[in-house]
Amino acid sequence: MEPTEFPVNRALNVIGGKWRPQVYCALETGPKRFSELEREIPEINRKVLTDQLRELEQLGMVKRTEFPGKVLHVEYELTEEALTLQPTMKSLCKWGTGECEEEQ
Amino acid sequence: MEPTEFPVNRALNVIGGKWRPQVYCALETGPKRFSELEREIPEINRKVLTDQLRELEQLGMVKRTEFPGKVLHVEYELTEEALTLQPTMKSLCKWGTGECEEEQ
Repeated sequence: MEPTEFPVNRALNVIGGKWRPQVYCALETGPKRFSELEREIPEINRKVLTDQLRELEQLGMVKRTEFPGKVLHVEYELTEEALTLQPTMKSLCKWGTGECEEEQ
Repeated sequence: MEPTEFPVNRALNVIGGKWRPQVYCALETGPKRFSELEREIPEINRKVLTDQLRELEQLGMVKRTEFPGKVLHVEYELTEEALTLQPTMKSLCKWGTGECEEEQ
């Protein structure tokens, strides 16, 4: 089977990548503003965070909501579809953490 | 947190990549010879399969066993550590498959 059709690869295409897991996990606790995400993932730079949010939006994983007002504010949140990935992310996190303990 | 330390990234480092999920899943059903793996993943070329098996061996996910005889034969199998990833792989597969159904 071509890798792009392999189900595991389809999931990895959504959650794989250097920063995507951290952006996903930062949004698991609810809608966040850009500045809140920056504070929660201090090592990520603005451009990369902007790109990651846009890609996650295009993949249907993140919803971007604008709140009009004197100063426009924007919030990002996981979509229903993205929330169905939580058991998988928890399982990856558990395995990754478990693997770390064995290494020490 | 630096991506390399983030638990999810540690797991993705082991199972991520274009061909690794398929090599992992082909070995889930038990030890296999190289030729059997080639038959099971016809789209992969010999060099890439050789590299993937070596990488998985270095990561402690695959055990390579040589069986002496007139003709030396070699078998590859998942290690205990790799088998602890099965629930995660099943979860990724389910999500990836579920996501595919919604796309049609």
